[in-house]
Amino acid sequence: MSTQPARGMRDFLPDDVRRRQYVMGVIARVYEQYGFAPLETPAVENIETLLGKYGEEGDRLIFKILKRGEGAATGQADLALRYDLTVPLARVVAEYRATLPKFFKRYQMQPVWRADRPQKGRFREFYQCDVDAIGSHSVVVEVELLAAACDVLARLGFADFTVRLNHRKALSGMLQASGVPAALHGETLVALDKLDKIGPDGVTRELAERGVAPAAAAALIALFSDGAAGNDAILARLEAVVGGDEAGATGVRELRAILALAAGTRAAARLRLDPSLARGLSYYTGAIFEIAVPDLAGSLGGGGRYDDLIGMFGKQAVPACGISLGLERILVVMGERGMFPPDLALAAADVMVAVWSEARLADSVALAAELRAGGLRVEVYPEADKLGKQFKYASACGVPFVAVLGDDEAARGEVALKDMRTGVQRSVPRADAGREMVAARGQAQGE
Amino acid sequence: MSTQPARGMRDFLPDDVRRRQYVMGVIARVYEQYGFAPLETPAVENIETLLGKYGEEGDRLIFKILKRGEGAATGQADLALRYDLTVPLARVVAEYRATLPKFFKRYQMQPVWRADRPQKGRFREFYQCDVDAIGSHSVVVEVELLAAACDVLARLGFADFTVRLNHRKALSGMLQASGVPAALHGETLVALDKLDKIGPDGVTRELAERGVAPAAAAALIALFSDGAAGNDAILARLEAVVGGDEAGATGVRELRAILALAAGTRAAARLRLDPSLARGLSYYTGAIFEIAVPDLAGSLGGGGRYDDLIGMFGKQAVPACGISLGLERILVVMGERGMFPPDLALAAADVMVAVWSEARLADSVALAAELRAGGLRVEVYPEADKLGKQFKYASACGVPFVAVLGDDEAARGEVALKDMRTGVQRSVPRADAGREMVAARGQAQGE
Repeated sequence: MSTQPARGMRDFLPDDVRRRQYVMGVIARVYEQYGFAPLETPAVENIETLLGKYGEEGDRLIFKILKRGEGAATGQADLALRYDLTVPLARVVAEYRATLPKFFKRYQMQPVWRADRPQKGRFREFYQCDVDAIGSHSVVVEVELLAAACDVLARLGFADFTVRLNHRKALSGMLQASGVPAALHGETLVALDKLDKIGPDGVTRELAERGVAPAAAAALIALFSDGAAGNDAILARLEAVVGGDEAGATGVRELRAILALAAGTRAAARLRLDPSLARGLSYYTGAIFEIAVPDLAGSLGGGGRYDDLIGMFGKQAVPACGISLGLERILVVMGERGMFPPDLALAAADVMVAVWSEARLADSVALAAELRAGGLRVEVYPEADKLGKQFKYASACGVPFVAVLGDDEAARGEVALKDMRTGVQRSVPRADAGREMVAARGQAQGE
Repeated sequence: MSTQPARGMRDFLPDDVRRRQYVMGVIARVYEQYGFAPLETPAVENIETLLGKYGEEGDRLIFKILKRGEGAATGQADLALRYDLTVPLARVVAEYRATLPKFFKRYQMQPVWRADRPQKGRFREFYQCDVDAIGSHSVVVEVELLAAACDVLARLGFADFTVRLNHRKALSGMLQASGVPAALHGETLVALDKLDKIGPDGVTRELAERGVAPAAAAALIALFSDGAAGNDAILARLEAVVGGDEAGATGVRELRAILALAAGTRAAARLRLDPSLARGLSYYTGAIFEIAVPDLAGSLGGGGRYDDLIGMFGKQAVPACGISLGLERILVVMGERGMFPPDLALAAADVMVAVWSEARLADSVALAAELRAGGLRVEVYPEADKLGKQFKYASACGVPFVAVLGDDEAARGEVALKDMRTGVQRSVPRADAGREMVAARGQAQGE
């Protein structure tokens, strides 16, 4: 029987879990500071809730769960694994609208599952860290979300990220102005989204294949390739391009408002207008964002406004906007750059109580209880083994202290403490042992 | 389209999540103090990893995942949802044995899925909080696990729990001594496990149906019904009953050692020997435990030693022992008894910044950033709405302060702060606003 995890899935050993918990802890604390509250939804949803929400490709990648009981023989599925955190949020908002605050602001950090072909850095189970604000059309929402995401990355130690910013309505205005018929807007955006990857020539070819006229394609690519200009220059140019197109003008006006409102926040220095940013998902209706660092091909996160999705579940259209941070990518970059705090790699215990002899077992267990009451993390070696072997084990585990209740020490009411970094061993009164090590731990952390 | 969660699954709104996180936080902190390290495994396992490990009933309750791609049409399953945390642990230990510490001590708090018929308090997705120690036969392991679990419950505020303690080898000795043939031991234990639920008469009937002789059944029930005696009396009686039976004598000796070693720990006052405790799962090989409170029919948790399970996955037998706490039941009892700290129900923010006018939007967003930098959790009302409506919203959300940048205040470099509990509003220098509210929050928490 194989003992490996299933294909594309991962086991997280203690050091992995500590790194993941550290990053998720920072994310949660920052989002709480912005007034977002935690939400959790089930891993398993009714299959109709998910199907048809992620496009044809998405439907194919959903893990489907077999019916139980008599339905099992039919080979049919009635349930499926969560594919993202946005569709469950839309379901939750539709279900609990009456009891949720009017402006419901939630964050959610849970795994999602996709039956993608596993690759380096792409897994079939991975965490999304989503933050969404429901119930307002105001661009204050976009700005708060952007400030929060920038705050998260800054607190994690990222100094070199940028947030690309664009707007679906501005894009629509640009396409209109460039002479792309409305029926081809969707396909044109899919092609333009690849500008980074396949370059202007590649995009020109794709646009031609999709039936976009050469003149329109050339106009668009010229518009999208001038990324070096500042935000103000781009805004002015966009305004000129979209002209009187109503949707386009709305989009440009909102982009201008977002940049102005963001001035007093952490996001100000990060925002870069990028007319070529399109984002793959079809449900966006307004501003869209994508967070990038220079040494990563993909993005660390992204999002945007989606004012029509929740209406698919309820009777009522409810405006919404959100950002999703990709935990796995953040972890990869932080690992490559050595950005984790050094004390995350600490041993699982501050001290190991060694066992002098079978007769001293009970007293060793009692000593551990005393030390824990003083706030220490205490490991007990479980057997009366050779002392040398016990010290070696403590050393291998990286435990900084070993405490031994030898017969002599016990008779004097003392404990022998060995500092595993210096090798120095000394006896201290048993009642003081905990304080001594707490003080030493404080010193070590201050080093 | 239904907006409810799938049958037997639950959405956790913010207050639910905070309660769950509080309890899991206490559990994690205590287990870390005992030297246990966190492990996480995938929700999805290869189906062969799970099948055949939980008995016939268990196999039936496993959620199975349809093959993708060309396999989908066959209606076959190749993956399945995690059913407990013990089998994945056994797989992990077999897979990473060479890199894990010899005495691998891990805790794991993750959801599991079972296709049980949903009932009050029984769900199809629920969390288990498991703690296991791998690699030692010593009863120090049992004692440390019991002390840790008792410490968790004490820190959560439980004052009235007991831990029932028994031993599979002692049970086997008792059955042997009562004249139950070895071939009937398994079925006899299943019947005896119901003594609490169906009483002595019910058990007698079941034993007769399973072919146990009336004299043996009567002897067993007499032995098991005398629960009022103290631990020492029960030990003495057990010793007399099992007599020279080798397994039985080993079991009684280990029970005696566990009680002696536990004397210096939090578990001492909680342990109650109970010869009738059998535990349902078949994989236990030594000591078994179950944690009970008076006002709950089921248990808050349980566990035991299982020295043969890991060997099913690897070439090597590896001794192991663990306890699983039932998060959902702990939450139910804590909720019914009102045991959660009152500040868990706090609003999602310490202060809401209201928006005086469209023209003051950017400055309001900037004020929020300043207050967050001072450590506060800050909500921004997203729109320039009527002030009365904004105050009403803050009040409904339970936010203790509202900050307003009126035109007059802004001109003076001040902020108007309204204390929502007293209704008192006053203007303070903008630079002091954060400090004022941090101080007020500190006072409120000290009340």
